[in-house]
Amino acid sequence: MATNEIIKPYVIGLDLGGTNSVFGIVDSRGEIKATTAIKTQGYEKVEDYVNAAVEALNIIIDQVGGIDTIKAMGIGAPNGNYYTGTIEFAPNLSWGHSGIVPLAEMFSKRLGGIPVGLTNDANAAAIGEMTYGVARGMKNFIVITLGTGVGSGIVINGQMVYGSDGFAGELGHTTMRPNDGRLCGCGRKGCLEAYCSATGVARTAREFLSTSDEPSLLRDMNADDITSLDVSIAASKGDALANRVYEFTGEMLGESCANFAVFSSPEAFIFFGGLTKAGDLLMKPLVESYNRHILPVFKNKAKFLISGLEGSSAAVLGASAIGWEL
Amino acid sequence: MATNEIIKPYVIGLDLGGTNSVFGIVDSRGEIKATTAIKTQGYEKVEDYVNAAVEALNIIIDQVGGIDTIKAMGIGAPNGNYYTGTIEFAPNLSWGHSGIVPLAEMFSKRLGGIPVGLTNDANAAAIGEMTYGVARGMKNFIVITLGTGVGSGIVINGQMVYGSDGFAGELGHTTMRPNDGRLCGCGRKGCLEAYCSATGVARTAREFLSTSDEPSLLRDMNADDITSLDVSIAASKGDALANRVYEFTGEMLGESCANFAVFSSPEAFIFFGGLTKAGDLLMKPLVESYNRHILPVFKNKAKFLISGLEGSSAAVLGASAIGWEL
Repeated sequence: MATNEIIKPYVIGLDLGGTNSVFGIVDSRGEIKATTAIKTQGYEKVEDYVNAAVEALNIIIDQVGGIDTIKAMGIGAPNGNYYTGTIEFAPNLSWGHSGIVPLAEMFSKRLGGIPVGLTNDANAAAIGEMTYGVARGMKNFIVITLGTGVGSGIVINGQMVYGSDGFAGELGHTTMRPNDGRLCGCGRKGCLEAYCSATGVARTAREFLSTSDEPSLLRDMNADDITSLDVSIAASKGDALANRVYEFTGEMLGESCANFAVFSSPEAFIFFGGLTKAGDLLMKPLVESYNRHILPVFKNKAKFLISGLEGSSAAVLGASAIGWEL
Repeated sequence: MATNEIIKPYVIGLDLGGTNSVFGIVDSRGEIKATTAIKTQGYEKVEDYVNAAVEALNIIIDQVGGIDTIKAMGIGAPNGNYYTGTIEFAPNLSWGHSGIVPLAEMFSKRLGGIPVGLTNDANAAAIGEMTYGVARGMKNFIVITLGTGVGSGIVINGQMVYGSDGFAGELGHTTMRPNDGRLCGCGRKGCLEAYCSATGVARTAREFLSTSDEPSLLRDMNADDITSLDVSIAASKGDALANRVYEFTGEMLGESCANFAVFSSPEAFIFFGGLTKAGDLLMKPLVESYNRHILPVFKNKAKFLISGLEGSSAAVLGASAIGWEL
């Protein structure tokens, strides 16, 4: 290792979400040394967004000793293409929905030419788990992110799977119910995401409420206002219907993992994101369903883990980990 | 490269099937210099099988100039584990169904210590396509073998995917119809293999015959005797019902490929095996179905190819290609 490598102890991580962009400066043990944030939206042009970002970033870069202490930057962003460092037609970004934005290159130019890598948030989570989390030392695993959508990051032979075009690992859009499935945001029917995302969980609750007369705390609410958080609160109070919503969600996830296992036979499935707070409520039916559906040769092989990375900083850590890979 | 590497121009390929074991000695351009074969079954112990194999092999090894011209050996075999070089609980092998057989090691010992690699037949087909076939130069592709069963070999980042245990790539056992699916030989329901293997095709024909009064050449046969070959012959004579059997098979395959694409976003899907002889009869509905089912971001990206390797020798070539990887 050259001397000038040794004196660059930090990487920048950017968790670029639909609402907020959170930055962190991280050391090699995954300790976040400084953070800052800006709004993601409200900029007409991507140049304005990058200007605001660099302005905020420079303050924390100075706090840790200046740009010479920064080895690289990693960005986790919707519709991020690792191969090109671009964000491509991201429907939820005001400055990124209608074209291809070379965001990695733009940040690199503004940050003294440091290498900048970019991928989607689920891939960033997988790299984060491999670098700082429960997947340290694993060569074959799948991270499934359970948030507003269902994302995934796949690692095979110790490498992220980006596929031929940079967009591999969209397991939220595998078809679970081909004939009578729920309509998904992608325009297709029966996707995993339509069942096992936060919105999918709320949808399941509404379905269960409308197809039974079972008493439930959730009946005190306007059905359209129910969120996965409400279901989780009701479940924690012992609400039977809310518990069955998690059971159903876990069963669907277990069934989907049985299909994923025949593809890459991972050592572990790692779950990440808000819904994992349900713990055993979700994980117990998930593992039971997996064991019912899995091809015998794979039985009792894969581990089922919940991400151990700190909730609020996990996405930033994941993004920063891309920096170490560059 | 050391001098002793240069003077070893050949590898041995063994296509170990349920009935026959076919050996070929192959050069680096994929030309088969000599072949021989023995029956796979009829040996009580694996030692007897290896004895018979080596006896037959030695004759063709002498033909090409002796064991010093042989760099390595590759074996494609059911339930083959690449990591360990073993065949594990292969239900259709009289000497291999009840345990773990260290076949690679046994051949290596009997062949002067040359390296011997072993994997399942579908992985061998994928390595064959990458070495000698239509996948030359590709880094991300999926081979789907359509024979008695449906197998698959997956290549990502230019590497075979063996997974954590050596058994990755069992795409024939992804669940296509979770609720009302056909019973599969693996004991589960709705697997791709139950629809799109040769036996699946015959089953579809029987289903179509029993659920309609449509005239068909296949009605001249005893329904239980119908094979995929009969369906293919009827289809080539313009039989409408037989044509619809292939249409259905292609549609199921296209739907499954749409699910595989979100995993690894391959540059190409390559089809291998007997059913591909149906050509456009199978491939046209397959590609149409894929385009109907695929997530928009992957639309019009993947190629759909039929293996160009010579039918009878393709499996031997595939197996031999493992030898070059060692």
